[in-house]
Amino acid sequence: MLFPRAFVDPSSVAVVGATEDRAKWGYWLAAGALAGAGRRRVWLVNRRASQVLGHPCAPAVSDLPDTPELVVLCVPAEHVLSVVRDALAKGCRAFLGITAGLGTEEDELAAMLSRAGARMVGPNSLGLFNGATNLQLAWGNFMPGNLAIVSQSGQLGSEIAGLGARAGLGVSRFCSVGNQLDLGAADVLESLVADEHTTTVALYLESFAAGARIVAALKDLRRAGKHVLVLTTGASEGSRRLARSHTGSMTSALDVVDAACRASGALRVATPRELVDVARVLDATAPPLGRRVAIISDSGGQGGIAADIAAAHGFVVPDFTDVLQARLRAVLPASAAVSDPVDLAGAGEADLQVYARVVELVAASGEVDSIVVSGYLGCYGEDSPGLMNAEFAVIDRLGRKTREAAESHVPLIVHSMSASSPAVARMREHRIPAFDTIDAALGALGRAARIGGQPGRHPAITRSRAAAPAPGYWAAREYLTARGIAMPDARRVTDTAELLEACRTLRPPLVLKAGWIEHKSEHDAIRTGLTADTAAAEFGEMRERLGSGDYVVEEQDTRHGVVEMLIGARRDRDFGPTVAVGHGGVRAELWRDVSVELAPVDRRTAAAMLDRLRSRRLLDGWRGQPAVDIEALIDAIVVTSEAIAADSCVEDIEVNPIRVGPEGALAVDALVVSRTAPETPGTSGVNHHRENHEEAGAIA
Amino acid sequence: MLFPRAFVDPSSVAVVGATEDRAKWGYWLAAGALAGAGRRRVWLVNRRASQVLGHPCAPAVSDLPDTPELVVLCVPAEHVLSVVRDALAKGCRAFLGITAGLGTEEDELAAMLSRAGARMVGPNSLGLFNGATNLQLAWGNFMPGNLAIVSQSGQLGSEIAGLGARAGLGVSRFCSVGNQLDLGAADVLESLVADEHTTTVALYLESFAAGARIVAALKDLRRAGKHVLVLTTGASEGSRRLARSHTGSMTSALDVVDAACRASGALRVATPRELVDVARVLDATAPPLGRRVAIISDSGGQGGIAADIAAAHGFVVPDFTDVLQARLRAVLPASAAVSDPVDLAGAGEADLQVYARVVELVAASGEVDSIVVSGYLGCYGEDSPGLMNAEFAVIDRLGRKTREAAESHVPLIVHSMSASSPAVARMREHRIPAFDTIDAALGALGRAARIGGQPGRHPAITRSRAAAPAPGYWAAREYLTARGIAMPDARRVTDTAELLEACRTLRPPLVLKAGWIEHKSEHDAIRTGLTADTAAAEFGEMRERLGSGDYVVEEQDTRHGVVEMLIGARRDRDFGPTVAVGHGGVRAELWRDVSVELAPVDRRTAAAMLDRLRSRRLLDGWRGQPAVDIEALIDAIVVTSEAIAADSCVEDIEVNPIRVGPEGALAVDALVVSRTAPETPGTSGVNHHRENHEEAGAIA
Repeated sequence: MLFPRAFVDPSSVAVVGATEDRAKWGYWLAAGALAGAGRRRVWLVNRRASQVLGHPCAPAVSDLPDTPELVVLCVPAEHVLSVVRDALAKGCRAFLGITAGLGTEEDELAAMLSRAGARMVGPNSLGLFNGATNLQLAWGNFMPGNLAIVSQSGQLGSEIAGLGARAGLGVSRFCSVGNQLDLGAADVLESLVADEHTTTVALYLESFAAGARIVAALKDLRRAGKHVLVLTTGASEGSRRLARSHTGSMTSALDVVDAACRASGALRVATPRELVDVARVLDATAPPLGRRVAIISDSGGQGGIAADIAAAHGFVVPDFTDVLQARLRAVLPASAAVSDPVDLAGAGEADLQVYARVVELVAASGEVDSIVVSGYLGCYGEDSPGLMNAEFAVIDRLGRKTREAAESHVPLIVHSMSASSPAVARMREHRIPAFDTIDAALGALGRAARIGGQPGRHPAITRSRAAAPAPGYWAAREYLTARGIAMPDARRVTDTAELLEACRTLRPPLVLKAGWIEHKSEHDAIRTGLTADTAAAEFGEMRERLGSGDYVVEEQDTRHGVVEMLIGARRDRDFGPTVAVGHGGVRAELWRDVSVELAPVDRRTAAAMLDRLRSRRLLDGWRGQPAVDIEALIDAIVVTSEAIAADSCVEDIEVNPIRVGPEGALAVDALVVSRTAPETPGTSGVNHHRENHEEAGAIA
Repeated sequence: MLFPRAFVDPSSVAVVGATEDRAKWGYWLAAGALAGAGRRRVWLVNRRASQVLGHPCAPAVSDLPDTPELVVLCVPAEHVLSVVRDALAKGCRAFLGITAGLGTEEDELAAMLSRAGARMVGPNSLGLFNGATNLQLAWGNFMPGNLAIVSQSGQLGSEIAGLGARAGLGVSRFCSVGNQLDLGAADVLESLVADEHTTTVALYLESFAAGARIVAALKDLRRAGKHVLVLTTGASEGSRRLARSHTGSMTSALDVVDAACRASGALRVATPRELVDVARVLDATAPPLGRRVAIISDSGGQGGIAADIAAAHGFVVPDFTDVLQARLRAVLPASAAVSDPVDLAGAGEADLQVYARVVELVAASGEVDSIVVSGYLGCYGEDSPGLMNAEFAVIDRLGRKTREAAESHVPLIVHSMSASSPAVARMREHRIPAFDTIDAALGALGRAARIGGQPGRHPAITRSRAAAPAPGYWAAREYLTARGIAMPDARRVTDTAELLEACRTLRPPLVLKAGWIEHKSEHDAIRTGLTADTAAAEFGEMRERLGSGDYVVEEQDTRHGVVEMLIGARRDRDFGPTVAVGHGGVRAELWRDVSVELAPVDRRTAAAMLDRLRSRRLLDGWRGQPAVDIEALIDAIVVTSEAIAADSCVEDIEVNPIRVGPEGALAVDALVVSRTAPETPGTSGVNHHRENHEEAGAIA
């Protein structure tokens, strides 16, 4: 759908509720609209004033000489419906709803707009800004630039814009989508794909109700060469409670949001500050292509702190090769440290050009993917005016290097002890991102390094028309083994005769399970280590206690050197099918070592999921054990992800544990929940899926 | 030892190497010294200039009319020895060594000073500052205040001072200890205990060579009511490499530094920014006494983000009681969220006093330990000048509340979207810590909440005169069981006859170990599940392969419902004896779930160590298992900690695993390394102890 031009570059705007009271929205919207009067007609409307901000004011939209393309609503909530009715009658078809607190009248408003084919941003919007079209219809002041801000919370969007402005980062478009009565975040995101002024998009959402559409838009943005930074809430019980009370919306599980970001090449950040810091790096340079960073400082203490913070952000501070060390030694005093971190040891005071020489040698070495200069650079001229020109000269030289480095993909960023010196301003002119703390510098660089390349193409999904699997372990076995997941040989038994027959054909030791019971251990519905001799007695006892039903007798997997993993797949309310893999077994919930992705995944993504696990090291052979069959585990992940994606009748698949040894992977317990057959009252549908994968690992 | 008055408030100062060149140290030290000329005599010395900064200059210290109490050395390295010789001859006995790069001449300098009974700060010091005595002998400008900075890195100390000044936090004393040729960090820390102008101490050290003395000083500072914030490096290979090349010093293991901080009531932070942020909170208020925080915002988005960041810092954002919610509902509009986080929903715009009303109700409720206001407060008057006075009024009211809150221990801090408005300045006047990002606000509050109370008194250590235990498992068993750690019944055997005798008296299944081998699994030097029938053959095979020696036959612990933990104890090079407890067994290194404390510990500290473990939940009964005997585990921790503390002959004790079940704890493998008997060439002494406890968990 095309985003209506009325919200991007309207030919005329009417601000209803315009006022001179700076404490009111009507002031900011009117003043902002008037700032664009050179480009479009601007009308102010106020029932009681004949003039606002030196401009004539009409009492109502119907009194205007022409039909405004966009009508801005700043009137009290109780007047909104009548103003909109009046404007629709005038022929208006686009509204920016600033007013909040419409309550149940929102439904009537939506119906009115829909009948008339009219569109709205808001209500409860903080406004719109478009630097390229001089459209400023929002509370606050915006500095033009290349960051687009799309926010479900107006004030949070405004905070991002404000933090950006303080750091010299301007805004291309700002859209506070408010209550998204009509147009929503997905519409705005789609409209940004072709926006030539936008290089980075900041998105704040509490709820990803249109998850699939948003993911598609994020992918399109990424393919169009734009970076997308995502901010959301829901990491804590407090924020989930607030979102419910605030907008009635359920926050999305963060691990799934992260999966959606990975799938679309976007990056999730935790705060406006993190967002703006990484946007500043991206505004100046391409993200680093790897995790090797050079730290260059004129202080051993600062270099050491920087190295530690770099490591905390996942960077490697590599020991330089002898060749590079020799080159650095040639330009540095004997007391300098010439591996990484480099300690200039006062060389900068003797000759400021040493900064540039060292940066150039390191950038040309191919030994790092990014460079951080930390310390006194930026302060020399401020403290000693006689050094100002020399400092400018070296910054100019670094600036040229930075432009080359941006091409050669070795970004340079600076932590300067000065926040506001002329030298720091000069760095910013050269688009060298300069931060006043090492925390911010390395945090921003670390996040930039996590930005993926172009979004991967998801494997195609062929929707199956398979019937929903029946409840219970036997059906889950049939479902999984039919799709190629190996499980031990087993028999379904309902009476002692069947049990004895099964014991004759299966290889002991055997496992007996009450197949219809979900949490078998907790209900004492599983027996291991049985032989043909002991199975009958256990079967009798279990049937006495649990009643009759589909029992399953299964060969027990007694292999040594096996790693117990889990594979899960779920249908997320917002983002659709997902797949998870993690450390399994009965302690899975303790360690919460789980990777989640949108499903389906291909083998490469499945392998990357394993690489993110701490327990990955177990798979390679732990403390003398042989390596296990990782390919078999990857197969099982891929198969499970394809199943949840294809079979819309399946809500939840949990394979835990899947025992992976040197000779293959065997799933030894599993659960498949169909949509049409909720198993346990009270845990169906939405509630079930509000839990993170991490919080519901083990089922055995 | 008393810190010499010459470095605190000298009656006269001579700056040798004074110059007018602002790019040189001699300028800053001369200008700073002259700023204190109203309090003390100041002489400038320069071989070539007769006048500097409008003051007469002597060619040498020997030419001065009197003996300066403190001599500042800013001359090139090659002149330092002759200047000191000249000054000593003149009777000078205190030196501030700014000059760096003395190299091997440092030894001669130290000898000269020692012979004369003279004292020195430095060399390679950035200088001294004392706000109360107007002593400014350092590069840079210092704002007087209550933060003392003691730093091994001058520039890092300077960064802390600069960040503090920008946020309105001044310095009481600054001491860049430089190369600590004579006076060191411990001396300065001791001198701060009685410093009435210092409320918080910032300490940066790369090396804690005088660890025990520093810990004692930190405890004394804490007992004197001062907070201590510790910054160090060594968290990464990069910073360890730099420290080695930079000062030749080995960094301390961070888990041990953290243990030392806990023991002394100090707090370790990771960056200068973190240090200054938490110091600002401590400057204004007592640390929160608990982890319950109220978030009050005028934006649902900002409140949600704040709640998530709060949770990330270990805070709980509690659901308010119905009583408090009703009280809040009475002062807030219907659309407001009245649990935690509170969303004012525009109430602030209607009446700014609502901020104060909500803060007061929440502070009085007893339901939280601290309050964070996040959002637009601080911006109202800036955006709408008509609101300025109303905003000042509510900040004044909050300021009064804050002072009361400081007494009632419910600190209030503010995150304002404005960094520099008059309203934010007003907050700072009221000592309401105001931060311009929620990251900084909650990071600072979270760290403040981690500050302990008064340091605990370590249990008294009675040094034992016990002989060093012999190498090998049998001696380790004897050592540990003699101290009350339970181990399975066992026999030492050297030949088949002894083995058979052992098998007759012990209860199978049995374990056979080659007792002198440290990593038994990896060397195939352990056999489990033996019976009297199979033991002889296994013994024969093992002795064939490994040779003769002290073998041990032990009863195998076959209890179910057992949690495998590890206990370790080491002698840290810097801080002395330490004890560790963690998740044990063969996967200990994978999960790295370990707590470390200085040894000895009492039962309460041992219990707190367990509480910090993720695997703590296993001990309480995991997934239907009964709870295990935690008291027995605590006993073993205490005993191990007392052993390493008392027995100076013991270097290292490792008990892994110790199997803890409902009926007690049994140590089933152990290692005791004596100082006098290093077991494996190349792993003795220092190298062995450079590893973190976490990196060397499992030994079985």
